[in-house]
Amino acid sequence: MDRSRAFVDDVNRLIIKVGTAVVTRDDGRLALGRLGSLCEQIKELNSVGYDVILVTSGAIGLGRQRLSYRKLVNSSFDDLQRPQGEIDGKSCAAVGQNSLMALYDTLFNQLDMTSAQLLVTNNDFSDRDFRRQLKETVNSLLSLKVIPILNENDAFSGRKAPSEDSSGIFSDNDSLSALLAIELKADLLVLLSNVEGLYNGPPSDPNSKLIHTYIKEKHHNEVTFGDKSRVGRGGMTAKVKAAVNAAYAGIPVVITSGYAPENISKILQGHRIGTLFHQDAHLLAPLKEVDPRQMAVAARESSRRLQALSSQDRKKILLDVADAIEANEKLIVTENEADVAAAELAGYEKPLVARLALKPGKIKSLANSIRVLANMEDPIGRLLKRTELADGLILEKTSSPLGVLLIVFESRPDALVQIASLAIRSGNGLLLKGGKEAKQSNAILHKIITEAIPETVGGKLIGLVTTREEIPDLLKLDDVIDLVIPRGSNKLVSQIKSSTKIPVLGHADGICHVYIDKSAKMDVAKRIVSDAKLDYPAAFNAMETLLVHKDLMHTSGLNELIDDLRTEGVTLYGGPRASSELNIPEARSFHHEYSSLACTIEFVDNVYAAIDHIHKHGSAHTDCIVAEDQEVVVVFLRQVDSAAVFHNASTRFCDGARFGLGAEVGISTSRIHARGPVGVEGLLTTRWILKGSGQVVDGDKGVVYTHKDLPVES
Amino acid sequence: MDRSRAFVDDVNRLIIKVGTAVVTRDDGRLALGRLGSLCEQIKELNSVGYDVILVTSGAIGLGRQRLSYRKLVNSSFDDLQRPQGEIDGKSCAAVGQNSLMALYDTLFNQLDMTSAQLLVTNNDFSDRDFRRQLKETVNSLLSLKVIPILNENDAFSGRKAPSEDSSGIFSDNDSLSALLAIELKADLLVLLSNVEGLYNGPPSDPNSKLIHTYIKEKHHNEVTFGDKSRVGRGGMTAKVKAAVNAAYAGIPVVITSGYAPENISKILQGHRIGTLFHQDAHLLAPLKEVDPRQMAVAARESSRRLQALSSQDRKKILLDVADAIEANEKLIVTENEADVAAAELAGYEKPLVARLALKPGKIKSLANSIRVLANMEDPIGRLLKRTELADGLILEKTSSPLGVLLIVFESRPDALVQIASLAIRSGNGLLLKGGKEAKQSNAILHKIITEAIPETVGGKLIGLVTTREEIPDLLKLDDVIDLVIPRGSNKLVSQIKSSTKIPVLGHADGICHVYIDKSAKMDVAKRIVSDAKLDYPAAFNAMETLLVHKDLMHTSGLNELIDDLRTEGVTLYGGPRASSELNIPEARSFHHEYSSLACTIEFVDNVYAAIDHIHKHGSAHTDCIVAEDQEVVVVFLRQVDSAAVFHNASTRFCDGARFGLGAEVGISTSRIHARGPVGVEGLLTTRWILKGSGQVVDGDKGVVYTHKDLPVES
Repeated sequence: MDRSRAFVDDVNRLIIKVGTAVVTRDDGRLALGRLGSLCEQIKELNSVGYDVILVTSGAIGLGRQRLSYRKLVNSSFDDLQRPQGEIDGKSCAAVGQNSLMALYDTLFNQLDMTSAQLLVTNNDFSDRDFRRQLKETVNSLLSLKVIPILNENDAFSGRKAPSEDSSGIFSDNDSLSALLAIELKADLLVLLSNVEGLYNGPPSDPNSKLIHTYIKEKHHNEVTFGDKSRVGRGGMTAKVKAAVNAAYAGIPVVITSGYAPENISKILQGHRIGTLFHQDAHLLAPLKEVDPRQMAVAARESSRRLQALSSQDRKKILLDVADAIEANEKLIVTENEADVAAAELAGYEKPLVARLALKPGKIKSLANSIRVLANMEDPIGRLLKRTELADGLILEKTSSPLGVLLIVFESRPDALVQIASLAIRSGNGLLLKGGKEAKQSNAILHKIITEAIPETVGGKLIGLVTTREEIPDLLKLDDVIDLVIPRGSNKLVSQIKSSTKIPVLGHADGICHVYIDKSAKMDVAKRIVSDAKLDYPAAFNAMETLLVHKDLMHTSGLNELIDDLRTEGVTLYGGPRASSELNIPEARSFHHEYSSLACTIEFVDNVYAAIDHIHKHGSAHTDCIVAEDQEVVVVFLRQVDSAAVFHNASTRFCDGARFGLGAEVGISTSRIHARGPVGVEGLLTTRWILKGSGQVVDGDKGVVYTHKDLPVES
Repeated sequence: MDRSRAFVDDVNRLIIKVGTAVVTRDDGRLALGRLGSLCEQIKELNSVGYDVILVTSGAIGLGRQRLSYRKLVNSSFDDLQRPQGEIDGKSCAAVGQNSLMALYDTLFNQLDMTSAQLLVTNNDFSDRDFRRQLKETVNSLLSLKVIPILNENDAFSGRKAPSEDSSGIFSDNDSLSALLAIELKADLLVLLSNVEGLYNGPPSDPNSKLIHTYIKEKHHNEVTFGDKSRVGRGGMTAKVKAAVNAAYAGIPVVITSGYAPENISKILQGHRIGTLFHQDAHLLAPLKEVDPRQMAVAARESSRRLQALSSQDRKKILLDVADAIEANEKLIVTENEADVAAAELAGYEKPLVARLALKPGKIKSLANSIRVLANMEDPIGRLLKRTELADGLILEKTSSPLGVLLIVFESRPDALVQIASLAIRSGNGLLLKGGKEAKQSNAILHKIITEAIPETVGGKLIGLVTTREEIPDLLKLDDVIDLVIPRGSNKLVSQIKSSTKIPVLGHADGICHVYIDKSAKMDVAKRIVSDAKLDYPAAFNAMETLLVHKDLMHTSGLNELIDDLRTEGVTLYGGPRASSELNIPEARSFHHEYSSLACTIEFVDNVYAAIDHIHKHGSAHTDCIVAEDQEVVVVFLRQVDSAAVFHNASTRFCDGARFGLGAEVGISTSRIHARGPVGVEGLLTTRWILKGSGQVVDGDKGVVYTHKDLPVES
């Protein structure tokens, strides 16, 4: 449940106001599908115990449509030649009200429900007796599980033209519903409209943002109200006014779309649907509520200032960050201990708590690793290629920051420090979302790092996202975020990959194979297989499938290897051949990551069959051949299409630190941008710099192309 | 319109059969929203002239629900203790029929329509008079614009238990509707179900594929039928049987979902919705109908065989392709002339026809450019980095093909040849979708190239996609296609970018800036601005915005530059400052690509303001500074965050050929993978190859890491 929607737990009686734009279609006819869905939804709410009161618009428009038709039918040809006068609004109301109620009655009847019509006028509300009577009648109907349907008695209202005149105690059905919500002590008022809620700009503009929680002080001057609906009074201005009135009288109001039938149920389940008006809105959503887009844009602006600094200045920032972390060790430890205590109290599993805790000496080692980064060669603006295009026209390809990174990480608060310093080193803006279990640790670390960044760069270089609800919004910002790096479980990576168009650097599976060729030295095979499976079974680069050349079947070497694995507690599952030959249970699927003391074993005819198996069932992470026959090795190393392909070495070597890449950003099984273990270079892109002295293309007659490679050292 | 759906042009009379799963919800209640939407849709069809006949299920289930309720109300407490017997199906039918018809009547009434109930039994159909009578009555009703609603008169049918017994001339409403379609000479039968259509596996399995056109010979044994619906006879098996019967009697049938209200309208507009049954199905969709996924998988398999070849063998393929193209010049020219003639006949615009035509000598030059590619250094397996991780443990980073590319190109058939040879050179699989105007040229070129590829690699390395309808399916295959390269209009690129999760190499806008600093030499500025705007105004790298240092305002140099542009026919629009200072119309937006003889001009305070403007309004494509002050130049070149940043050189230089990259794959404004003009390297990724002699990690105590960079030459 969204934090700001916790009030729904106390909702029993709700008023649903159905706007004209929901009741009728663009062509003026009744929207039967929408009304049907609405009634089905009310049935559902009713059957789980909610008291529902309906306020419905749409009668006048419907009546006008009916009467136009009637008039046409009754017209002579002569009549039709004359200019057609407007049909009197009150007659429209009288006809339409009847028609609309008949439909509601039929629909509710079909659902074994009964509805009741209650028509009110402005004058009625000045009469205290009437108001008491209204309450009594509504309460009585609700106790009988009848749905009261209220509308203004437009046919007899004091208004001159019911769809224009907005005078009175209530001015339209929006204000009527607010008034009723107060009178009838409703717990929630839902205003159904034809848009998702209140936007800070025209709803048709893709840059407009839905306001989740309306805060009067903040939004009053910001929002742009759409035009009034085609038929009917009201419009968004009237809705906001009514919603504010009800909200300040203590009744929460949600404006949402009546086009999505399940919206009301979702609101009552606490989902962040539509725009909420609540008297404590400023508490529910603090004034400085972060707009994910603004965060990303601010991070990019700051990153551009960071890039504009000299290499020395960037180095100094990192050294300052390292000093600040060390200087605030006590503070950090205190906050971290609070997180650890809370996690223990909440009954988190031991390994999670262990990952959460900053061990003694960790702060110092973090600070030192930042200093190592500070002293590395500046990765920004490195000259990668230099070409003379023509006399005096020099093209350079240089490294430059990617832009804005979004990192979603779990548990370990030290990851925040590592990632933040990598971002500073590579000149990137950063949005960070840590796990809620490390909330206080992350907050203090973020504060310390941000304060160490000079004002010339700006404190918004690194943004800390604190609530889960913001992640879906962030993942939509493919125009302002350049790369997402999820660091955490398999599930986290898969979820993020499947829900964003932003490139994701990461890997969801690690189904690594070791293939033992018949030419293998069996002691080498034993050593590698045992390390690949046992060194850290839960790692992505641990062996999951062992492929064995068929000639090794039932040899003493292989038998010993299998015995060794069993002795170490490894459970073996077989492919079709191995399970029968070795008498072991059959593996359910070859595409399976055990991440534990278990693996699949299968026999293959030769290296080509092994390669086919790996291509068919693997995850293109890390695959290894154990062999001495160089021809076989060359085939394997050339043909296996994985991020890392090893010969006679454990799959566990596939790792940024072991590969000597320095700080590891992650391991990528994507084929685009970066593949395998990724260091700082995964956070960089390139720019082409062309330096001339007035050269022009002029239909390619402007210069004589030389395209001479120049050394990059100069 | 989908080719296979062309028959809809002749549809006038259609029968819509509404299945039980559409009429009732999972909980047994009427699905009011769906029925309302259905009636609205029928109203629309009726008002544009279609004759609609409805066959509706759902009465028995609805009656059972009503009677259970009734029984409950009439039960004593004692009654309820006893086991509850099943309610007689015929009574259910009698009660439900009434209730269902009452609802249809009300709904159609609300839409100013009239419906009629026609109940038929099996026996009736053996009577020729009855059948004649039925036809006459239906025709009469349709002529009065009444909607006939047919159902089996289950209350009096000869069936023992109406929801189980399936004997007779028709066995359920599916076969009834097929029978009626034949009797009443309908032009189309639509069977509304709760799934999108017929799948080749369980609809719940994500690997199941919707069959767009059912071909008896092909699909009869392939399809898996879902279970029967919870209530009602029928199910998918019955639907397919009925559909096949009607189709072979000459009436096309579409099975589709009744959950999406707009499906019927879309079918009648010729969209490929649901599963079509048609007596000429085998002609409409040839037996070897391509499955996009299979194409992509086959291309990847072929590409792996291509990679496994030696460098020499790959070179030979390219030389063979070049020879084949040349040898078949006459054939290619004939097919190309046919395309050109068809395009002229169809009244295509001149520039398009010009791009379509292969000019004399083009074939020879294409063949030669393939030979140049053949002779270039092999890009696959190139050693990019070499590191000693530990004694005898050598890590290599090598280039390797990306995998499978999808190229969508417009018009020029020569693009097919260039792209195909680039793919072969870089070892990638390829799916090609050309413009329909170049259909014959593309087909012959594809055939010639594919035939030149040896069987060891396979003819499916390069797949030609021939219909537009396959593109959406292809763009979904983010697990088997690695990169999409759209080559064509702005609109094409934007559309593809917004509709796929596959990485897209391309650029949607090119809003290039030239900034003239106050330190600029004005003759250099004039030359560059004129080239950048006039050399090829429609190019992406043409200047769209000219930014000028404010100190140059009203100087003779700038005035001359502006006069020169005007003389050349360039229309100038101003930003707020320039429009008032120069008395020119104001530009509507700074983020605007004219692609024609027009540009925006604005004054800025200094280089920093210019940079801000470029970041705020540009597209990060190519931006240029004209200046002599080296300090200013350095600031611009360092800070402008675009793919290409130029000093004193025309923006038009931003191009793969001019940059000396050889064949250009495209220009990328993405920051990931490749940026700016992209050559063959954009089609490559890397693999990490680790060569050892049995080394293991063993908790990082297994080896002593040296991390020594080794030269890459060896």
